[in-house]
Amino acid sequence: MPNEETRFERGLARLAEVDGKAGEEVVEPLGDLGRYIVEFAFGDIYSREGLSLREREIATVAMLTAMGGREPQLRVHLGAALNIGLTAEEVEEVIIQTIPYAGFPTAINALTLLKAVLAERA
Amino acid sequence: MPNEETRFERGLARLAEVDGKAGEEVVEPLGDLGRYIVEFAFGDIYSREGLSLREREIATVAMLTAMGGREPQLRVHLGAALNIGLTAEEVEEVIIQTIPYAGFPTAINALTLLKAVLAERA
Amino acid sequence: MPNEETRFERGLARLAEVDGKAGEEVVEPLGDLGRYIVEFAFGDIYSREGLSLREREIATVAMLTAMGGREPQLRVHLGAALNIGLTAEEVEEVIIQTIPYAGFPTAINALTLLKAVLAERA
Amino acid sequence: MPNEETRFERGLARLAEVDGKAGEEVVEPLGDLGRYIVEFAFGDIYSREGLSLREREIATVAMLTAMGGREPQLRVHLGAALNIGLTAEEVEEVIIQTIPYAGFPTAINALTLLKAVLAERA
Amino acid sequence: MPNEETRFERGLARLAEVDGKAGEEVVEPLGDLGRYIVEFAFGDIYSREGLSLREREIATVAMLTAMGGREPQLRVHLGAALNIGLTAEEVEEVIIQTIPYAGFPTAINALTLLKAVLAERA
Amino acid sequence: MPNEETRFERGLARLAEVDGKAGEEVVEPLGDLGRYIVEFAFGDIYSREGLSLREREIATVAMLTAMGGREPQLRVHLGAALNIGLTAEEVEEVIIQTIPYAGFPTAINALTLLKAVLAERA
Repeated sequence: MPNEETRFERGLARLAEVDGKAGEEVVEPLGDLGRYIVEFAFGDIYSREGLSLREREIATVAMLTAMGGREPQLRVHLGAALNIGLTAEEVEEVIIQTIPYAGFPTAINALTLLKAVLAERA
Repeated sequence: MPNEETRFERGLARLAEVDGKAGEEVVEPLGDLGRYIVEFAFGDIYSREGLSLREREIATVAMLTAMGGREPQLRVHLGAALNIGLTAEEVEEVIIQTIPYAGFPTAINALTLLKAVLAERA
Repeated sequence: MPNEETRFERGLARLAEVDGKAGEEVVEPLGDLGRYIVEFAFGDIYSREGLSLREREIATVAMLTAMGGREPQLRVHLGAALNIGLTAEEVEEVIIQTIPYAGFPTAINALTLLKAVLAERA
Repeated sequence: MPNEETRFERGLARLAEVDGKAGEEVVEPLGDLGRYIVEFAFGDIYSREGLSLREREIATVAMLTAMGGREPQLRVHLGAALNIGLTAEEVEEVIIQTIPYAGFPTAINALTLLKAVLAERA
Repeated sequence: MPNEETRFERGLARLAEVDGKAGEEVVEPLGDLGRYIVEFAFGDIYSREGLSLREREIATVAMLTAMGGREPQLRVHLGAALNIGLTAEEVEEVIIQTIPYAGFPTAINALTLLKAVLAERA
Repeated sequence: MPNEETRFERGLARLAEVDGKAGEEVVEPLGDLGRYIVEFAFGDIYSREGLSLREREIATVAMLTAMGGREPQLRVHLGAALNIGLTAEEVEEVIIQTIPYAGFPTAINALTLLKAVLAERA
């Protein structure tokens, strides 16, 4: 299956770029679901051109904040945003941008998570 | 109230930059709610530094797509994204970026709205 | 089934109080689902003591606004809030109260619906 | 790209089984997003073993009903559920099953859509 | 109140069938809310014909996964699905079926919960 | 900036009335986001006339319960509702009122949080 390999390999490389080693460790125990994350989310979607990785993470942090109830994945992408070069202030700015569209509660939760992620890295 | 004027005026200028004339027309009939959109959403939040207007619209289109059920405002911000310089392909790319986080249904709805917005402008 | 009759009858009376004749017409074509609305939503929940009908409608309009994507039922309860004695200004105030918790888009949609309901009644 | 072809072809066959000809017509104008629906949603997920197609549609109708704000896709899957052999009464039963988990408003909307789908087919 | 007793008793029997003893223990401390779960959710809805208990749990696990933010109840119904005869693989399959409709984050959370439920039972 | 001071001061006073000292402590570490909560949520919205503080908290508890996934803020507002004079039974009644509109899972979560808040205060 040369092409599936390509999607999986491309996804794994993209995942490593975004999440660091942690990404692969998170995805592996998830079985087929983890494989789809690598192949589809990272091999197909995150590997597209048309937006920079920085812009994709801005979109993702905004979405996961605004939807609420997706804290573990929001935490991963707060870290991913920092990994690919956003400053802590810029990530906070994305969280603040969600307020007019989703209100304060989900923004407070995201800011609390960001502080925890930053403290872990310090 | 000099400072309130400043927030309102700053918000109105920012709104015009994002939405064109249509923005003011949409906001005026909304009374106090419309005033808060100008003062808070645009005078406070959209007037902050730290992210470009392009990045704020990427975040906003992603959020409104992913949450679903906010079609009129999504339509406004699909237009706003085009107004401030994103290409149609880039807006489509933001919509595609929502798929791994919110699934296909809300992305299909957003793409359908984008086509309607583009057809109106053509 | 004397008690089921009581729940259904009590619910129907409560529904009439809240929605006017329209309520029964809306519920009847829904079959079993409509029967559960009468028995459970109105015969059980809306017939409880502990909060006034005014307070129950304030809670309901706030919820339906904040959740988004439930426009037909929000429209019914905007009318119900007016039926049981809230002024148009008070209903607008409930909608404004949702902004810090759910953002502007769902509040704009609710205000637009409120205007349509008020125009129909004028 | 032999394997991509396989995923796409397998997805198209599965989509035809679920949605009839309408499915392909809906997906084609959606560009890359439509291709991902065919490849990933139908070629990968819907082509898995482990649940019957009937069970997959029960899950899908329940989800789309409960989440709200996804009416066009709910309409497609109400039709799909009928296409693959659920009776109208069974689809209504899935909608009723959502009430304890998501409340009445989204169930009412789904039942209204089901009636429209049934009327179109009559 | 003979009929209310019937609804309550029927609900309690259905709850025991679905949740095992844990169900009654969970519901009892919830007061009137717990009584409505027994009477309405289990005495009325879960006691209906038209879908098998297996199909009702497939719908419920799919909904609770897709909506997100309802982890304690999702955990209960992951256990319930296993109780009434779904295999762990089938429950995982329901979770995978939610991906195209609600994205990866809520599916990852559900799979993590399923692993915890399975570990507890082992 | 006399007027900004006024909004901030008015908001701080309103926040103290609603949340007690805990409110200011929660808001201060949140930086600009915390400032917007004081200025906009409390200085603008909660300081409006047209609804009593009791009615605003009823709306807020209902919304936060129904949306799910906003537990820390729901906990704050369950306490706030008690602070401004609702009885525990009345707060429970607001939670019960959400069932027909958002289902049982979010209501169970809110009732569990209410019990925790009451136990802390006892």
